[in-house]
Amino acid sequence: MTTFAPLFVPDEIAAAVSDRAWLAAMLDAERALVRAEASAGVVPAHVAGAIAGRCDPKLYDAGALARAGRAAGNPAEPLVRAMREGLGAEAAGFAHWGATSQDILDTAAMLVAKRALRPIGAWLGEAAGECASLARAHRTTPIAGRTLLQQATPTTFGLKAAGWLLGLREAGALVEAVSARRLRAQLGGAVGSLAVLGAGGPEVARLYARQLELVEPLAPWHTERSALIELGAALATAAAACAKISGDVVLLAQTEVAEVREGAGGASSTMPHKRNPAVSVRTLACAAGARRHAATLVAGEPHEHERAAGAWQAEWPAITGALEGAGGAAAGARELLAGLEVDPARMRRNLDLTGGLVMAERVTYAAAGRVGLIEARRLVTAAAERSQGGVTFRQALAESDGLGLTPAELDAALDPAAGLESAAALVDRMLDGGESG
Amino acid sequence: MTTFAPLFVPDEIAAAVSDRAWLAAMLDAERALVRAEASAGVVPAHVAGAIAGRCDPKLYDAGALARAGRAAGNPAEPLVRAMREGLGAEAAGFAHWGATSQDILDTAAMLVAKRALRPIGAWLGEAAGECASLARAHRTTPIAGRTLLQQATPTTFGLKAAGWLLGLREAGALVEAVSARRLRAQLGGAVGSLAVLGAGGPEVARLYARQLELVEPLAPWHTERSALIELGAALATAAAACAKISGDVVLLAQTEVAEVREGAGGASSTMPHKRNPAVSVRTLACAAGARRHAATLVAGEPHEHERAAGAWQAEWPAITGALEGAGGAAAGARELLAGLEVDPARMRRNLDLTGGLVMAERVTYAAAGRVGLIEARRLVTAAAERSQGGVTFRQALAESDGLGLTPAELDAALDPAAGLESAAALVDRMLDGGESG
Amino acid sequence: MTTFAPLFVPDEIAAAVSDRAWLAAMLDAERALVRAEASAGVVPAHVAGAIAGRCDPKLYDAGALARAGRAAGNPAEPLVRAMREGLGAEAAGFAHWGATSQDILDTAAMLVAKRALRPIGAWLGEAAGECASLARAHRTTPIAGRTLLQQATPTTFGLKAAGWLLGLREAGALVEAVSARRLRAQLGGAVGSLAVLGAGGPEVARLYARQLELVEPLAPWHTERSALIELGAALATAAAACAKISGDVVLLAQTEVAEVREGAGGASSTMPHKRNPAVSVRTLACAAGARRHAATLVAGEPHEHERAAGAWQAEWPAITGALEGAGGAAAGARELLAGLEVDPARMRRNLDLTGGLVMAERVTYAAAGRVGLIEARRLVTAAAERSQGGVTFRQALAESDGLGLTPAELDAALDPAAGLESAAALVDRMLDGGESG
Amino acid sequence: MTTFAPLFVPDEIAAAVSDRAWLAAMLDAERALVRAEASAGVVPAHVAGAIAGRCDPKLYDAGALARAGRAAGNPAEPLVRAMREGLGAEAAGFAHWGATSQDILDTAAMLVAKRALRPIGAWLGEAAGECASLARAHRTTPIAGRTLLQQATPTTFGLKAAGWLLGLREAGALVEAVSARRLRAQLGGAVGSLAVLGAGGPEVARLYARQLELVEPLAPWHTERSALIELGAALATAAAACAKISGDVVLLAQTEVAEVREGAGGASSTMPHKRNPAVSVRTLACAAGARRHAATLVAGEPHEHERAAGAWQAEWPAITGALEGAGGAAAGARELLAGLEVDPARMRRNLDLTGGLVMAERVTYAAAGRVGLIEARRLVTAAAERSQGGVTFRQALAESDGLGLTPAELDAALDPAAGLESAAALVDRMLDGGESG
Repeated sequence: MTTFAPLFVPDEIAAAVSDRAWLAAMLDAERALVRAEASAGVVPAHVAGAIAGRCDPKLYDAGALARAGRAAGNPAEPLVRAMREGLGAEAAGFAHWGATSQDILDTAAMLVAKRALRPIGAWLGEAAGECASLARAHRTTPIAGRTLLQQATPTTFGLKAAGWLLGLREAGALVEAVSARRLRAQLGGAVGSLAVLGAGGPEVARLYARQLELVEPLAPWHTERSALIELGAALATAAAACAKISGDVVLLAQTEVAEVREGAGGASSTMPHKRNPAVSVRTLACAAGARRHAATLVAGEPHEHERAAGAWQAEWPAITGALEGAGGAAAGARELLAGLEVDPARMRRNLDLTGGLVMAERVTYAAAGRVGLIEARRLVTAAAERSQGGVTFRQALAESDGLGLTPAELDAALDPAAGLESAAALVDRMLDGGESG
Repeated sequence: MTTFAPLFVPDEIAAAVSDRAWLAAMLDAERALVRAEASAGVVPAHVAGAIAGRCDPKLYDAGALARAGRAAGNPAEPLVRAMREGLGAEAAGFAHWGATSQDILDTAAMLVAKRALRPIGAWLGEAAGECASLARAHRTTPIAGRTLLQQATPTTFGLKAAGWLLGLREAGALVEAVSARRLRAQLGGAVGSLAVLGAGGPEVARLYARQLELVEPLAPWHTERSALIELGAALATAAAACAKISGDVVLLAQTEVAEVREGAGGASSTMPHKRNPAVSVRTLACAAGARRHAATLVAGEPHEHERAAGAWQAEWPAITGALEGAGGAAAGARELLAGLEVDPARMRRNLDLTGGLVMAERVTYAAAGRVGLIEARRLVTAAAERSQGGVTFRQALAESDGLGLTPAELDAALDPAAGLESAAALVDRMLDGGESG
Repeated sequence: MTTFAPLFVPDEIAAAVSDRAWLAAMLDAERALVRAEASAGVVPAHVAGAIAGRCDPKLYDAGALARAGRAAGNPAEPLVRAMREGLGAEAAGFAHWGATSQDILDTAAMLVAKRALRPIGAWLGEAAGECASLARAHRTTPIAGRTLLQQATPTTFGLKAAGWLLGLREAGALVEAVSARRLRAQLGGAVGSLAVLGAGGPEVARLYARQLELVEPLAPWHTERSALIELGAALATAAAACAKISGDVVLLAQTEVAEVREGAGGASSTMPHKRNPAVSVRTLACAAGARRHAATLVAGEPHEHERAAGAWQAEWPAITGALEGAGGAAAGARELLAGLEVDPARMRRNLDLTGGLVMAERVTYAAAGRVGLIEARRLVTAAAERSQGGVTFRQALAESDGLGLTPAELDAALDPAAGLESAAALVDRMLDGGESG
Repeated sequence: MTTFAPLFVPDEIAAAVSDRAWLAAMLDAERALVRAEASAGVVPAHVAGAIAGRCDPKLYDAGALARAGRAAGNPAEPLVRAMREGLGAEAAGFAHWGATSQDILDTAAMLVAKRALRPIGAWLGEAAGECASLARAHRTTPIAGRTLLQQATPTTFGLKAAGWLLGLREAGALVEAVSARRLRAQLGGAVGSLAVLGAGGPEVARLYARQLELVEPLAPWHTERSALIELGAALATAAAACAKISGDVVLLAQTEVAEVREGAGGASSTMPHKRNPAVSVRTLACAAGARRHAATLVAGEPHEHERAAGAWQAEWPAITGALEGAGGAAAGARELLAGLEVDPARMRRNLDLTGGLVMAERVTYAAAGRVGLIEARRLVTAAAERSQGGVTFRQALAESDGLGLTPAELDAALDPAAGLESAAALVDRMLDGGESG
């Protein structure tokens, strides 16, 4: 099922957060529960099989359950009723034994997240691979470093790409860490005390988590939602890394800058010259969605007493929305990077737009070794002021008394392609990797 | 189509914000455009009919358009292509004449909002009607006024209900005002200059808006999004009014308070005594969703230049989400209020829980008329402290030297059902209405 | 007092939201209360003067009250204690008669907002005036219209400025409307029933509001916070209008675009060529702050029962923050616009960057009148494709069979400075004004 | 300096985030920079000492720097100017060598955060200690478990307190982890390439981070802001843990519930019976502030190119605000828990309010062992329905045919103080600790 809004969710993610996926995850939780209870001797083995047999999404109508879930306040309650309807009295009694709706839905949410995080992690990794290739290929490609969107001093496109890489790697590491260490099974019963399961409760909870390949928490977390905060933070980090890249691409792809363009280039029907950065725009929109839903998870209201009245129910669309947004952003960043066309010649030409003034900092520091920074700055600034009209900046500098640079030194300082060793060294270090602090 | 998340959206709203509804609204915009252009003589009359005939949602597959819209960056572009495919060359050329995708989608968003606001406004009105009935019926029903969730001094349940009424009325007025005065047609062409339509542009824009029964803006608003801020504010106000009511009901329905309960009462399968405030909880969850999406609309990023790269696309799910949430909240509040069971006897009993101390403020002010507020407060506080153990607050007060109240005056001051005239007068005033400042 | 964070708040706003300003506003409320009560005969005239005499901010230490307010939960409670300490017993008893802390603080918040809105409204108006001048001066100055940050088709800088004007005017109108019609006095007593004032309550409330030049509400609004939602929406609208302008300026001021620059231009010590758009950046940062605080106001939690436990207290910094941010944004936009240097020649040159392709839409529509849009588009697209290398777009178009345009018509369609009548007409309409729908 | 809004920030935090603290942190960064450069041989040793001597906050006027920072766009630029003014030309030239303003401010932000996190971590730990004591003391104290604010089935107050403990421990662990592993030094120079420092750049960066006891990042992070997302997430987790506790306390302290009360109890001047949960309310308000600022950090806009135009500047108040809020919440939770008065007798009495119906789930599961869950539920529900009027729930159950429980078993199932072994076992496990999954 596709939707107009959010329009840009990749199919894999749309499937992973669909009604059907939630239904399947709830049934996975019920199946794991009864198997754990059978292993622990709480439920007779002969009914466990029958109950597990009812844990097949094909037996249910997701839409009907959703409708029934409105009155019940959640979709787990009607699901359990529907499960029981297909079972004999004994088995029906043991289905969902000792559990509460929130156990099933929280566990399902974790499974849905885990399954959606898999492609997200993969896309982040592939996007990082593309960045690494760009960083390697453009390790010494000069480009204007820009601050406040003004040309400041040269850097390399490789360093830019390595910076993108770092963001993606941080995001990938967080997504991986949350997936492996924070997504937890939920089992607590009506008030989180596992009372119905008696002394065997903790053992059932352990087996249940193992079945589901989710983390076994120390205790039920019906009202302790820090795992969702960390899920939100990981997805926000992923979105931020992708937004950084696509934001830069949109700027670099401007008609007046034209240093990169998207390979697939969104065509415009009446403006054939436009090479719309459509993938970047889609990525930005998805990232914005991810950030706002992640912020909702991070800023969630406290849950009252043993189970909350409203705060819990409000989490579901935020989980889905944050996964959709981060999924769209990660898929977009990968697509964008894989097709990115880079124009080093244009980068070089743009460095000439200021008539050498973009090299002022470098000249200043070069001269500072001779005359001190204060004096060097004074002289360079004065030369910059004189360089209007027919006088070039180089001429004005050459005529500066006391700058202390030989013509060759001056030329070197004014060469945008020189002096980029530190950038290249940083690129190497970032490609070598290791986790950033 | 129902979904697990958001689960609680009423059918009317789900339909009004569905893919099909967006598609229909986009086609309404295209139809209005070609009719306006025909009226203005921009498009030949004989092709206008053919184009209008293509503006039928049944001719299109919403899912396929959505998928195609991913690459294009919006669903209007593939829709126009699909429209043209079914037309001869001349008509195909005049379809969507002079418009840009954002014209169609912004207009569709306004239409979707307008159509969803209709049931929302109606539900707010019906909920207000229920509040008015409660306010009238309980004009003098004493209930503990509670501040910081502590009993403070008596008020009436009627005043409480009238306060709910006021919130609903404010929300209704804002929803109405936004619907009538802020939802505007969009028509600007590629860069918002109406250039293709030449001198006739403004006239086409006027006719277009009139066709759609939307406001005619002074100029295109591709990047001037204040209408969405006001839409968000109105929906947030609606959500807040509904959340206030359902939040109070959840508190009043607590086992230990039990002054109201929901008629439909969410049943719990293994806890037959529970009368879960399920409708209130649903309303709170929807209101939380509405508030966060409304906040997104209110805090939207600026749109760059003539049309934005990302900020625009990020608005769609927020519009849909805010309408869904406000719709769920308004429908929930109405349902909740229509079935609310009120227990005046229990309200009265709860007023006795403090052994009369809840009347301390009233006694203090009664005595203040005789001995001044400072002295009265000193004496009443001292009496309150002495009223532990076997001594009642009334006895302790009666033994206070210098309080200056006769036994009859003391009894009157200690009667929770007395002295509620000001509350009743406020109720009357609020029922009489007039718009609040 | 200035602070590092938020750094960019103008002095006028910093003063208007300072501790001292809040203190003065609380005392204004107390003074108005006692005067209203004296007029209504609730408080003896001879003590009213004494109490009013204590309503002088110079008599109090704002810092000490703030510290004391932590334990009390609000600063009004210690203020009333401090007021009473300087009065005789009778007057002390009548100070703050019948009011609750929230009455004083809510009223103070409205006064603080009203006072801060005054300069904000003025700055918005002045910024609008600058935009109007720019729109008039550049009514026909061609500039590339840009969508998704790509050159799309020409528009005028005047139309761009008129769009900025419209946003500012909407914001100004909302700020004005909220200031005049939504900022309300608060008077309800402990539980919002005006019980202590008895039958005279409504009259006191009326006189109180009139004294303060605030709106008289229909009833106390201790828990009905829609006025804050509307305040938030107005401030967000102001911030959005200013962010739109400064965001566009940052983009237009890029080294590679260079169509405008800030007059005051932030200097960089080692990069003398940089003309940092420092005012725009400051404006953007302030606007971001305003939007987030406004979103907090819009998405505020419901207030429980008669007065809330937490939701109320959480509003204060959001009110202050939203005013600070909107104030900084409005002052910044005005400063920015007043000093803006516009370079029409560069705008014109940038229109040539695509070798005429930026005119493709115009050529297409010109030809469409002859050969239909579909065929025109096909031919123009083909010409655009052929126009790489030595062949210009004009040549390629001229060689197109069947485009149906004479050389003169082609030249006209390719002239970026022609065909901007609709833009100029829109500018006139927007300057004429009238309120936008 | 105290402020009215935010009012509830503890002195330690107010000091840690004050202008003076930011100033001191910026000077710490400058001092570490020059020392690192001296060690690396970049700056002559004889000027390093002079420069370090200028890194004393007492030499500067924070207010004047802030004012000057408005025009510059940040307070680091005027600070460097002021530093240089007090130095000879040679030393002046070497001050701030190779750094950019953002290096100094980002590093200062990390130092400010690190210093504020110290008391926050300590308070979280002390609050956790109080929770552990409560959990131990009330390991078997029966209390109604409440879901949707309705009594559901008994649990223990110890389990409730252990749940609070878990939340605080998660928060404490995150705060600790962020402080130790994510707060990083920033050094990159104008465009993040360390170009001025040449080959020695990485070594200077290493020494700089070590001096400051901050993490050494792999590369400059001018536009890679994931550390702020994680800081935000940690502070939100802290706020959530504190809000959970104070929210529960406000509910448990309601007049009608009265199971706990705050020791310090906010007094009300005219309502002596009120024991306002003032510390809880303050904690809730601070936590709400922390959550919203943390959400801002988590949802931050992408930073353009090498250094951002607006997104960076907008971070500062969010960092300060999140620390203030989390600090207020942590201090509040500790104060609240340290003084909490617990009333086990009232907890027990409240369990009798439903006439035994609160035990229905337990009776059902007890009977389910005999007759199956479906039949047991049917019988218990029927008994519950019959237990209105003079018939007690116990009587109705005793008269149920086929429930299969002996009178002794029935009594056991109906005893709220029995059957809490699983809760006690969970408490033990949680006290034993280990990190939660």
